[in-house]
Amino acid sequence: MTVTEAIQNRQSERAYLDKPVEKEKIQQCIEAARLAPSACNAQGWTFVIVDDKDLKNEIAKCANSLGMNKFVEQAPVIVAIIVEKPNFTSWIGSLIKRKDYSLMDIGIATENLCLQAQELGLGTCIMGWFNEKKVKKLLHIPPYKHLALIVSIGYTDNEQRKKIRKPLSEIMRINRY
Amino acid sequence: MTVTEAIQNRQSERAYLDKPVEKEKIQQCIEAARLAPSACNAQGWTFVIVDDKDLKNEIAKCANSLGMNKFVEQAPVIVAIIVEKPNFTSWIGSLIKRKDYSLMDIGIATENLCLQAQELGLGTCIMGWFNEKKVKKLLHIPPYKHLALIVSIGYTDNEQRKKIRKPLSEIMRINRY
Repeated sequence: MTVTEAIQNRQSERAYLDKPVEKEKIQQCIEAARLAPSACNAQGWTFVIVDDKDLKNEIAKCANSLGMNKFVEQAPVIVAIIVEKPNFTSWIGSLIKRKDYSLMDIGIATENLCLQAQELGLGTCIMGWFNEKKVKKLLHIPPYKHLALIVSIGYTDNEQRKKIRKPLSEIMRINRY
Repeated sequence: MTVTEAIQNRQSERAYLDKPVEKEKIQQCIEAARLAPSACNAQGWTFVIVDDKDLKNEIAKCANSLGMNKFVEQAPVIVAIIVEKPNFTSWIGSLIKRKDYSLMDIGIATENLCLQAQELGLGTCIMGWFNEKKVKKLLHIPPYKHLALIVSIGYTDNEQRKKIRKPLSEIMRINRY
């Protein structure tokens, strides 16, 4: 699958087939995330694969509130993405430039994961809406760590939706804002 | 080019050929970023393509300090990525969950841009280290906006480096942190 195809076809999948996902495929997705660039090569991330059904269902419950993310229980796998401390250069750079590189790095790595999944025929949905405290407890993540995102992964037979996006003219400028 | 290849071959390119980049290719890269997912589909981003040589060189100077990013002047194109206000749902979600979705969204979109560039035969380097105030002035970006990243884009003939990354065993866990 070309990069263009993967980017065009990736969509947030909110229904999954009752079909297990091969462990090797999930590992390939994490490998893609591992290769992502990060500020000062800090690689401030840990990926927890949750494929134990009971545990996964407990986590799915943590994502389901205010009518959001009900579908997560259908997904056979959830990946939890934890922000780790940056290395010294990235940390000092963040301070000097007053920028939080770590969250941008997490975004970059997560997109690698999702595009790799797409190529492997898997659907994903990135979620930032969940009970962080409860998920951390379930996964034995220390309370002081920041769990940035969870991603559901699984096979789907959903139809391709038309993407709703701002037109290029609205988000792109040339040589001047 | 497959997604796997693009992810494996993408590297931060810090030398560029003196060869202009087709406008259509840059636009394709922005199109890839446009299609990226974002929290509540907020799409809180603007991309300013800088291909005017004098202006680009001025911006390159803003990235060059403490011996870093000297190479940027070689790149024929720089893209500046500005964080825009999130939509209401993303904003309220950020508040409730105390998460900054906007920077993760910027990371996701930027990686789409870079992987698309890779497929088009272009090299990129994502930079968070630059004089934000000066770049904003040069591009007429309002002072209150946040310029998150700049990305250099151009043709290269650099050798493929071996990526230095933490091993998978260090960043991946199963069912427990």
